[in-house]
Amino acid sequence: MVTDLWYFWCICALMPGPRTFRALVNHYGGARAALAALPDLARRGGATGPARICTREEAERELKAATALGISLLALGEPDYPRRLQMIDDAPPLLAARGKLAALNLPMVAIVGARNASAAGIRFAERLARELGEAGFAIVSGLARGIDGAAHRASLATSTVAVLAGGHDRIYPPEHADLAAALLDDGALVSEMPLGYEPRARDFPRRNRLISGLAVGVVIVEAATRSGSLITARFALEQGREVFAVPGSPLDPRAAGSNGLLKQGATLVTEAADVIDVLRPILGQPIEPSAEEPEAAPPPSREPGADERARIVSLLGPTPVTIDDLVRLSGSSAAIVRTVLLELDLAGRLERHGGGLVSLL
Amino acid sequence: MVTDLWYFWCICALMPGPRTFRALVNHYGGARAALAALPDLARRGGATGPARICTREEAERELKAATALGISLLALGEPDYPRRLQMIDDAPPLLAARGKLAALNLPMVAIVGARNASAAGIRFAERLARELGEAGFAIVSGLARGIDGAAHRASLATSTVAVLAGGHDRIYPPEHADLAAALLDDGALVSEMPLGYEPRARDFPRRNRLISGLAVGVVIVEAATRSGSLITARFALEQGREVFAVPGSPLDPRAAGSNGLLKQGATLVTEAADVIDVLRPILGQPIEPSAEEPEAAPPPSREPGADERARIVSLLGPTPVTIDDLVRLSGSSAAIVRTVLLELDLAGRLERHGGGLVSLL
Repeated sequence: MVTDLWYFWCICALMPGPRTFRALVNHYGGARAALAALPDLARRGGATGPARICTREEAERELKAATALGISLLALGEPDYPRRLQMIDDAPPLLAARGKLAALNLPMVAIVGARNASAAGIRFAERLARELGEAGFAIVSGLARGIDGAAHRASLATSTVAVLAGGHDRIYPPEHADLAAALLDDGALVSEMPLGYEPRARDFPRRNRLISGLAVGVVIVEAATRSGSLITARFALEQGREVFAVPGSPLDPRAAGSNGLLKQGATLVTEAADVIDVLRPILGQPIEPSAEEPEAAPPPSREPGADERARIVSLLGPTPVTIDDLVRLSGSSAAIVRTVLLELDLAGRLERHGGGLVSLL
Repeated sequence: MVTDLWYFWCICALMPGPRTFRALVNHYGGARAALAALPDLARRGGATGPARICTREEAERELKAATALGISLLALGEPDYPRRLQMIDDAPPLLAARGKLAALNLPMVAIVGARNASAAGIRFAERLARELGEAGFAIVSGLARGIDGAAHRASLATSTVAVLAGGHDRIYPPEHADLAAALLDDGALVSEMPLGYEPRARDFPRRNRLISGLAVGVVIVEAATRSGSLITARFALEQGREVFAVPGSPLDPRAAGSNGLLKQGATLVTEAADVIDVLRPILGQPIEPSAEEPEAAPPPSREPGADERARIVSLLGPTPVTIDDLVRLSGSSAAIVRTVLLELDLAGRLERHGGGLVSLL
């Protein structure tokens, strides 16, 4: 848990840049080592202003307010950070968590679905959440109306985790404030956003990667085509999580998304055993980084020279290129290319697109 | 089409024994050759009475009545017998068909499901039948209330085939007599049962093998666990037909069977294209016998000797054994063993269990 102001400030300074932080942690072998290297790296990358860096005063205020609200700040790479979430490509550098933190290291199943769910969908989500809770899984979801809320409510007595799209003091939807408070006894609320952050529409899809990232598997109960639940399912696939879907009538538009997932190979769920049978064997396995995860590299034996840096920067432009291509075309080692990219990234000049693609901003 | 009394009588004489007739047709290379060998074979097998043989007078009456009703009698192995049905293990020796016989050689999709179907199930069956009809498939089903009736009705304008569990003059359920009459214009009614035969409960599962046997693929729209539709699905699998199922809510007991089929690997259907995409490539392929089909053998070069026959019979008992084991243990050729089995079968002393298993009655 983060209580050291300097440490906290450094992490804040990187937000929102989870991919960059991830690359740093991999590169330097841990959050503290990465942060120690940070100021120098950012300067070399050509950082010209504090645009992405919060001030020391802001950091102080945030840390004090968080503590007052009973919020713990968990840093990527530290032992109390949720283990499965740590393995995703764009794990948040800092996770603000409130409630019973032990819940975050239970095996979790995500149950997500439509806000305008049918009565049958709500009833099924409740039954599934209750039975998976009794089987020892914490239920993670997004605190939304409909399926999410039903899943949380039915797992209050066991353990349930809600991932917020805004800050801890900006519960959305407001009518779920009581539910959010109730789940703290045996579960937790988590957010990657600072206090006071009001969630916008685009923050919800981004938040969904944390719901799937925390879980071993994701169950989609009712989902229309092009719904947020399908975004969660896509993240789950990218992160190597198991994807489950609950079937519905082809004439019910709320089932179109989940039926579509079934056609694409999601596991069909009509009872908790369908989920448990798939997940039990996985729980016994060591937690592995997801497929897209870049390999951890030892710290570079030397720093990039000015010529090397210039050559690599000249190969970059607004069109995304792969890091592999940069290594090949620059003639530099992969370690040197990665260091230059980190420098650029910290200076706010690089965009990471996932899949090893980068471009200059 | 069968119009020859002697021929018809011989086939009648074998009913109900489709596996036996199948073995005869395979053994002698055609229905006519098999029938010519029949009286002698039956005598050698130890036939003691006419228990399974209808009288000449009965045959005459049946043929006359059938002709009067516009019924055509199609014999297994003859050119006008439906080609896919011909390939199943227990194809009926004789098929009584009424209506537009050309419909029986269109590619067919079976649509079957619950009698107490939901409004949504009915609507979906109608939509699917109409769209598959427009795509050139005849729709085959069981004329039952609910899904079956909906599928027939929606494909009246294209082509629909109903398989009866009783005789042509015993339409069941009676309120579907109008539907049965209406489908004759562009489709057909078929039955393996003689005129006047009142269907009993156990005739419906038996009839279901013809629904799947006529079709390239079977779509189960709504089916409870342990329902007749699941029997059709099982036949379809045994016959190497494609199995499709329409998903439904896990809380709807009418979807339990179809969801169960999906878990077992049936193709999920939410629109006609899901069926067409799977079946189109199959239609281009030559029609192959199903996996269980015994190989066609040339007529035996010699008849079995009395010693050989006695040895083979002594190896048989009430416990089913495989024909392969009989060949191995008797030391006789496969052709000789098959001939002895046919003799016993025609004498009413053999039971064929499928999967190459036989026992003495």
